[in-house]
Amino acid sequence: MTQKIRIGIAGYGNLGRGVEAAIWQNEDMELVAVFSRRDPASVQLLSAEVPVYAMQDVAKYTEQIDVMILCGGSKSDLPEQGPALAALFNTVDSFDTHAKIPEYFEAVDQPAREHGKTALLSVGWDPGLFSLNRLIGECVLPVGETYTFWGKGLSQGHSDAVRRVPGVKAGVQYTLPSEQAMNRVRAGEQPELSTREKHTRECYVVLEAGADAEVVKQAIVTMPDYFADYDTTVHFIDEQTLASEHSAMPHGGFVIRSGKSGLGTQQNVEFSLALGSNPEFTSSVLVAYARAVHRLNRVGDIGAKTVFDIPFGLLSPKSPAQLRKELL
Amino acid sequence: MTQKIRIGIAGYGNLGRGVEAAIWQNEDMELVAVFSRRDPASVQLLSAEVPVYAMQDVAKYTEQIDVMILCGGSKSDLPEQGPALAALFNTVDSFDTHAKIPEYFEAVDQPAREHGKTALLSVGWDPGLFSLNRLIGECVLPVGETYTFWGKGLSQGHSDAVRRVPGVKAGVQYTLPSEQAMNRVRAGEQPELSTREKHTRECYVVLEAGADAEVVKQAIVTMPDYFADYDTTVHFIDEQTLASEHSAMPHGGFVIRSGKSGLGTQQNVEFSLALGSNPEFTSSVLVAYARAVHRLNRVGDIGAKTVFDIPFGLLSPKSPAQLRKELL
Repeated sequence: MTQKIRIGIAGYGNLGRGVEAAIWQNEDMELVAVFSRRDPASVQLLSAEVPVYAMQDVAKYTEQIDVMILCGGSKSDLPEQGPALAALFNTVDSFDTHAKIPEYFEAVDQPAREHGKTALLSVGWDPGLFSLNRLIGECVLPVGETYTFWGKGLSQGHSDAVRRVPGVKAGVQYTLPSEQAMNRVRAGEQPELSTREKHTRECYVVLEAGADAEVVKQAIVTMPDYFADYDTTVHFIDEQTLASEHSAMPHGGFVIRSGKSGLGTQQNVEFSLALGSNPEFTSSVLVAYARAVHRLNRVGDIGAKTVFDIPFGLLSPKSPAQLRKELL
Repeated sequence: MTQKIRIGIAGYGNLGRGVEAAIWQNEDMELVAVFSRRDPASVQLLSAEVPVYAMQDVAKYTEQIDVMILCGGSKSDLPEQGPALAALFNTVDSFDTHAKIPEYFEAVDQPAREHGKTALLSVGWDPGLFSLNRLIGECVLPVGETYTFWGKGLSQGHSDAVRRVPGVKAGVQYTLPSEQAMNRVRAGEQPELSTREKHTRECYVVLEAGADAEVVKQAIVTMPDYFADYDTTVHFIDEQTLASEHSAMPHGGFVIRSGKSGLGTQQNVEFSLALGSNPEFTSSVLVAYARAVHRLNRVGDIGAKTVFDIPFGLLSPKSPAQLRKELL
């Protein structure tokens, strides 16, 4: 057995925990350490044998880690940690503020190049697998339109808005792709669709004692910005049902390319995800791409990268010959 | 404008015609010449300005062509033309005899390396885009099962079998994915399914004058190997309907990865194609990959390759920075 790929985790929340568990499913990898800005003694991992260290000491561990998986948030953690850690380690992160990716790419590229490291950014499913499908869709069908639909997925922001309505004790909100809109796309209509037209909203609400269901429902479906312009459904449930059926973090969606090939024939390419847990799946993608980063760095391919730069063959523990034989 | 990528086509049937048309949709490419084993004067292209040359003279044109797209069949054309042309040109082909891919890879790799050429083999949708999805599915969800379903698609072999039944004047056969089997997979059951269990068959038949529909139907649905073990439906139609509604070559299918991420949560990844024309779509994929082959060869990355070796970014005429900004 060759030496396992030694993984570190920087930041331990839902995503970090998902990475820890995903590594168990990849026999050629091992988790070496977790780094946290919290008091290391307060961080409870799934696995008791893995040490937790203070983030401020991370530079002491450069020799023990092949790839650091950054599990902080895109808003404040990654803009700071990404460039800093790319100077010390090969890295993979899930930076997902789409509009700021070009700027973040430059910020990570320079320290990575200066220190001979490989830094793969914006990995996951969107950005990530969805991006790959948007790209290949327009390359194989240059004449056409690409549509991204999200859901069924739990939306934090909209769930918070529901919970602020007077009379609501607890609740969650799911964003769903509009079946009607998807079917128009699949039929080759190539409609112009706003984000609003592509999605519907579904709320599951627990009422406070004595609250009027009809009043609460009207307050939700007429709420400006959040619900008023969408087809919104409100379901009233009890607290036990909320706890038992609505505590997971499902998500997913669809990338559809509708195009016409050279002789005018309609052709559809569709990619979709139905995820029982959004953070766990993102973690699984990060771990697969950590393998590719390790390999790229070993052949001297340094600097910032995105999923667009990674051949799929590098994601697999199997040899190129085995992949050709088994999967092509 | 930088110089266009100069494409040649070797073999001009449905696939070659599709490549010719697909090149019109890619402004950074131009078709330079078509090569045929038939009398060049007898080959009618879509576009009158492109010359047709005899295949035996192909070696005279090495300086005028950046990438040769091989449009012959996998059974007898490509095993001979693939290695021969890989010594003269950068090539892309759609070799699709899955079991012989390892052998074909070796046969093409050696001449390509010896002559500094890049040879990309087995491109299209299966092998091709489906293979990519089988690969990434098992990499991001290592604990799970991958399912490939084909259809709705016209099957030549089964259409021929229908037409051999006494009383059948004309007809076509479509292979369809079994909705029931797909729904079991999507539900996370991870069933063991044979090819037979995954597909149903649908026949559209024109009867000869005086033929007994019930006798013909029984002869079809009980035919060993072809239909007896499948859920088979037979529709009787007239010749006009056959001509107007069943003369296209639709195909497609589904690659579904059903897996559990590290903490045991069900996750589904699904890729599907609904193709109005099977050869036209395959051609479109070949042309996109020709761009990647040209680029790889220019940086000295020679030898035989498959889709597993190609980063998606190389498929696009857009720059890496533009791709990150627009599609990531």
